[in-house]
Amino acid sequence: MTGREASGFVYLVGSGPGDPELLTVKARRLVDEADVVLHDKLPGPEILGAIPEGKREDVGKRAGGERTSQEYTNDRLVELAEEGKTVVRLKGGDPFVFGRGGEEAERLAEHGIPFEVVPGVTSAVAAPGVAGIPVTHRDHASSVSFVTGHEDPDKPESAVDWDALAASGGTLVVLMGVGKLPEYTRALREAGMDPGTPVALVERGTWPEMRVATGTLADVVDVRDEAGIEPPAVTVIGEVAATRERVVEFLRGRGGADATADGGGSE
Amino acid sequence: MTGREASGFVYLVGSGPGDPELLTVKARRLVDEADVVLHDKLPGPEILGAIPEGKREDVGKRAGGERTSQEYTNDRLVELAEEGKTVVRLKGGDPFVFGRGGEEAERLAEHGIPFEVVPGVTSAVAAPGVAGIPVTHRDHASSVSFVTGHEDPDKPESAVDWDALAASGGTLVVLMGVGKLPEYTRALREAGMDPGTPVALVERGTWPEMRVATGTLADVVDVRDEAGIEPPAVTVIGEVAATRERVVEFLRGRGGADATADGGGSE
Repeated sequence: MTGREASGFVYLVGSGPGDPELLTVKARRLVDEADVVLHDKLPGPEILGAIPEGKREDVGKRAGGERTSQEYTNDRLVELAEEGKTVVRLKGGDPFVFGRGGEEAERLAEHGIPFEVVPGVTSAVAAPGVAGIPVTHRDHASSVSFVTGHEDPDKPESAVDWDALAASGGTLVVLMGVGKLPEYTRALREAGMDPGTPVALVERGTWPEMRVATGTLADVVDVRDEAGIEPPAVTVIGEVAATRERVVEFLRGRGGADATADGGGSE
Repeated sequence: MTGREASGFVYLVGSGPGDPELLTVKARRLVDEADVVLHDKLPGPEILGAIPEGKREDVGKRAGGERTSQEYTNDRLVELAEEGKTVVRLKGGDPFVFGRGGEEAERLAEHGIPFEVVPGVTSAVAAPGVAGIPVTHRDHASSVSFVTGHEDPDKPESAVDWDALAASGGTLVVLMGVGKLPEYTRALREAGMDPGTPVALVERGTWPEMRVATGTLADVVDVRDEAGIEPPAVTVIGEVAATRERVVEFLRGRGGADATADGGGSE
């Protein structure tokens, strides 16, 4: 245990899905008050662009373009706090939903640095939500599971049990789910999930460039390719994904009909 | 299809877990601008108390104490919009996480009323988060599932598949999870989940009266009874629940050591 003398403080803060108005009141205040805001690219350009450059520190890339390790970020948080700084560690979505905020919290505690967690709006809920898709629904889904698409379901050591998730009967939301879409949709079909299950792809949910494409577990890879859906995006799998077509005509905001990836609003 | 003439507008807005600073910037603005804010008790007293009484309408209870039906709320949203009002339907947490916002969206679309979804911070993530518990963790949990504790797992028609959730290997967060705690923890043990799995109960997460109690899948019912944990509360089941004890000494905010239900901070 070192660093008991530290007078600094770290806030682990979620920035929400990307729309600056979906920052919490507290996140906005803390960003204003912080000495340093440590961030990567995930909060998105609208939010990052509003933070004075003099207090921003990008740990998403290092000089030379090399990707910064989580280890570097953990160390940097400790270092700044031990200098007495008030630090905001700004993370896309919520800091504890696939954000590695848990590791940062543990490192801070190991070094005796006081910290606080400031939850944010997770894109796992918000991206479907603004597209008119409720992740739970009394008639269709009694549970919802969030999973990362970064893991390859074909690897035997995969920590994600797609069989169990398919059997849960609830909605599945796959974050970072564009690249491995063929692998995990096949894994779900092989696990017995109905190939006709509705699926929605939501790219850059709540961003000005937000786009939505819809299909089924059987055809969503083609839908992705035809619409040209790219990361960052979330995949919503389950009956709830069909809600969008029932409501989109009257849905306003960034996820309304204009965000439909085929360019039309006449679903 | 009726109501095409409506000039009103409905915002389905999440109020977050209860701390007024965890409202989004957008939610706060919309509440200020709305003609009417339709709400129940779930946003919590701090948030509701800050809304001028003249524009609040409580659909959580009707005169006489009778509980208002979802049907009544759906109808009232349509009615107010057709009168030309700008309506905020303010819901605890996120409107689409066990909030029945999906049904409200569908009803609005059926009546041709334009609406927008404004996501909020869900207590399923925020209540554990401020208690120092990350719902996912690279070392412990590659997925997280949210489920409602209102359903009785002993009923054969239960829509929640506890066997599949136990097999998923991810974190489980049970909302409204106090009353049926004995039933679903038994269901999970019977499904083969390790009785030593860490469990945390988080009562009124982010509220001033927030309390946290921790145990295992085997003893958490006793923990609940001894600590006197009451609704509203969420239950976090999984290795991640043990994170709290590793970080709580340096955790600040409403979920810090003072929120520990045994009154001590010396876990």
